[in-house]
Amino acid sequence: MAKEITSREENYSQWYLDIVKKAGLADNSAVRGCMVIKPYGYAIWEKMRDQLDKMFKETGHVNAYFPLFIPKSFLSKEAQHVDGFAKECAVVTHHRLMNDPNGSGVIVDPDAKLEEELIVRPTSETIIWHTYKDWIKSYRDLPLLINQWANVVRWELRTRPFLRTTEFLWQEGHTAHATQTEAIAESKLMHEIYAKFAEEWMAMPVVKGSKSDNERFAGAVDTFTIEALMQDGKALQAGTSHFLGQNFAKAFDVKFTTDQNTEEYVWATSWGVSTRLVGALIMTHSDDEGLVLPPKLAPTQVVIIPIPKPEAEIMLVADKIADALKARGISVLVDADEKNRPGFKFAEYEMKGIPVRVGIGKRDLAENKVEIARRDTKEKSFVSLDGVDAYIDDLLNEIQENLLQRSKDFRTEMTSEAKNMKEFNEIINGKGGFVYAHWDGTGETEQKIKEETKATIRCIPDDAVDELGVCIYSGKPSARKVLFARAY
Amino acid sequence: MAKEITSREENYSQWYLDIVKKAGLADNSAVRGCMVIKPYGYAIWEKMRDQLDKMFKETGHVNAYFPLFIPKSFLSKEAQHVDGFAKECAVVTHHRLMNDPNGSGVIVDPDAKLEEELIVRPTSETIIWHTYKDWIKSYRDLPLLINQWANVVRWELRTRPFLRTTEFLWQEGHTAHATQTEAIAESKLMHEIYAKFAEEWMAMPVVKGSKSDNERFAGAVDTFTIEALMQDGKALQAGTSHFLGQNFAKAFDVKFTTDQNTEEYVWATSWGVSTRLVGALIMTHSDDEGLVLPPKLAPTQVVIIPIPKPEAEIMLVADKIADALKARGISVLVDADEKNRPGFKFAEYEMKGIPVRVGIGKRDLAENKVEIARRDTKEKSFVSLDGVDAYIDDLLNEIQENLLQRSKDFRTEMTSEAKNMKEFNEIINGKGGFVYAHWDGTGETEQKIKEETKATIRCIPDDAVDELGVCIYSGKPSARKVLFARAY
Repeated sequence: MAKEITSREENYSQWYLDIVKKAGLADNSAVRGCMVIKPYGYAIWEKMRDQLDKMFKETGHVNAYFPLFIPKSFLSKEAQHVDGFAKECAVVTHHRLMNDPNGSGVIVDPDAKLEEELIVRPTSETIIWHTYKDWIKSYRDLPLLINQWANVVRWELRTRPFLRTTEFLWQEGHTAHATQTEAIAESKLMHEIYAKFAEEWMAMPVVKGSKSDNERFAGAVDTFTIEALMQDGKALQAGTSHFLGQNFAKAFDVKFTTDQNTEEYVWATSWGVSTRLVGALIMTHSDDEGLVLPPKLAPTQVVIIPIPKPEAEIMLVADKIADALKARGISVLVDADEKNRPGFKFAEYEMKGIPVRVGIGKRDLAENKVEIARRDTKEKSFVSLDGVDAYIDDLLNEIQENLLQRSKDFRTEMTSEAKNMKEFNEIINGKGGFVYAHWDGTGETEQKIKEETKATIRCIPDDAVDELGVCIYSGKPSARKVLFARAY
Repeated sequence: MAKEITSREENYSQWYLDIVKKAGLADNSAVRGCMVIKPYGYAIWEKMRDQLDKMFKETGHVNAYFPLFIPKSFLSKEAQHVDGFAKECAVVTHHRLMNDPNGSGVIVDPDAKLEEELIVRPTSETIIWHTYKDWIKSYRDLPLLINQWANVVRWELRTRPFLRTTEFLWQEGHTAHATQTEAIAESKLMHEIYAKFAEEWMAMPVVKGSKSDNERFAGAVDTFTIEALMQDGKALQAGTSHFLGQNFAKAFDVKFTTDQNTEEYVWATSWGVSTRLVGALIMTHSDDEGLVLPPKLAPTQVVIIPIPKPEAEIMLVADKIADALKARGISVLVDADEKNRPGFKFAEYEMKGIPVRVGIGKRDLAENKVEIARRDTKEKSFVSLDGVDAYIDDLLNEIQENLLQRSKDFRTEMTSEAKNMKEFNEIINGKGGFVYAHWDGTGETEQKIKEETKATIRCIPDDAVDELGVCIYSGKPSARKVLFARAY
């Protein structure tokens, strides 16, 4: 495999696309803006999905499945929601094709026009709350803690694999509660779970916070977000959890009888993460040699390569190490291919981001050693065969921790404070990254700053300290600093 | 929970719908022909999916994900395929909505018409083989053993939850091979895996065989099928595996360089099972009290009910049994709800098909016993607390085996042979079930029999014995008996 990837310094955007392609993660498709997720990319998503699913189930959630299509009229029922989601979406208008009477292929049958157009779901609040009306009658039916793994479609103008695609895969939780307190607690719980997943599994530090009015989910009362920092200094919104108040319950007339025998509207939350996380993972850790994966999400954690060839003596040791690693629950590949040389294999697995590489050569074997290379730092060391599986197990944990620490250090380095617009502009146009600054709390100011700098308020951090100050833009009073950045 | 389900004898169709509803498996949705899969129904599908996914991966397959949309022109590229699939499907013609200038909701933006319409995939051969053209250059790229878990849409006129819905969930394997022999072997391997899954996991016996020309998948050279028998004597096609020859490779121009440096078209297979299996599972085992589930696919295998109330003394024993079962990998629910009485709970879990119910009452505890009821036979027995977990573990295996045996016995009883049309009609219009009969091998005869009796050739069984005979319809020579039935 030739090292044909663009360096980050030369062209960060191209570097990203090169990794997606060369590591075999995704391909463009024949449909504009839709990607094909290739087996290796899908394997990473599967690992994410399985872990998230486990965390959801451990907190009492169950999975269900709702229709792909939403009747057009449903989208208009929640006033803010329709503005946010009813614009760029795929519209099904017909249900039949027919042979072209002129003999060239198939055409849409004009007689098969739907009475009401169907929208391919851009998100499922409307169809789900329409369903919940039948499911919720009494406080005994609550809470409903339901999640769905599904594909959704948003007709995006500019797309980029994983980060923004017309169709993407995600999960969307939709919960229903008897009280406001409980619904808020649920939305915060999922916010915490997303942050925990990002840090402990993706090794990606995030800032937790709330969205400003302008950036909030269409139809939400409050949106909680986790914001990560990519290596080019741009922020990436990695997962959001929404407290929806009674907005959807009112729009779809979902009431319940309380234990006091009164009737009330139900309280709601929704929360989601998507295949965008794969893009975030790539951009957080990878380098100019290719993908770098945290061991906990690597489909293959260890690759063993016989040097120079898979001779019997070497393969015996390789298989023994592989068995010992598998017994520890570590995924391992022994590359016994005879066609490619070790140098080629090294480059290939480097490109694919396999966390640990074990090279087994005859000379080293004579000394009871193997060579172990870690992908994150590219350090190599010779390790005794005795206890090599325990060594690798520890090393995988160390790599996981190192990737998180490295990303935290990078974020610290790339986090600034700005006291005024001059400083703000200097940072945003210079090193970029996260910028904490005072803001007067108005949508107008936020909008102006966005227009002038392309930076947006990523969140009002959960841990923001109350401190009086003046807004960098308007000079008006501000109660706390918020987090700005240019974003994906 | 009132026992409001229709009996099978009274109305088999309604019995099925009642179980789907009362056991909480699925609901109708606001979109014609699309169902909502409720958490309990989805949990069964998840268990099926996880097991199938494991079996696919153990045989070297990997997952990927291809776009939901297929450009209309793709469907016309394989001549037979277009006839089979390009008819009743959802067509996306626009990509934007706008506010109605007359102020009532949203309308389709006429300016956002797509240049080429997109079809919501009814199956993915076309988009996948279009993609494979880029992935396959040399024999080194083969075989490609890829599976996809996805939703598909076929605009069905008459729908029934799980059995036939406009949108359904499924897996579709799409493999590419260098030789015909290898592709045929692959399609037969998956055929075997489906049969194994049906028998060992669903406890549903199946007849394995090939489809006749008339019933073959559109675009296939050979279709292998597993056919199950439902309790009303109708057959249900439960999973198909297709040898596609070079049809799709030729339609999408997918060639590869062989190891002899010649250029050849690639050989293909595809294979799939869907949420229809949930319908098959329901109809194979359930009774007039509700759902009956084989333990291997039951989301909850054991329920423990304190009698009459969750008093401390009883709960101590309940939790102890639950822990011992969990340690054996058995899923268990302790129902400590205080609102509902044991009788209500018994009926509810009977409706939901939980394989084993443990009742713990004070009087029995004094004698160191608990009451254990099995869902399949409704037998109850008093079992000593000592080793009760091992007893339940064995009982679950016994239930799994009993369900398979019971279904096999039923099938034996419902399988007949017909020597002529008079016998054939008597059976089909009488007890129904599977009918073995000689057939002259022509599509015309098959079509006539279908028109006159509504019975179709389910398959030419893999184990059909070569024996000369005469076709029951035409009197022409026949080389072997084939399997007929009315079918879902």
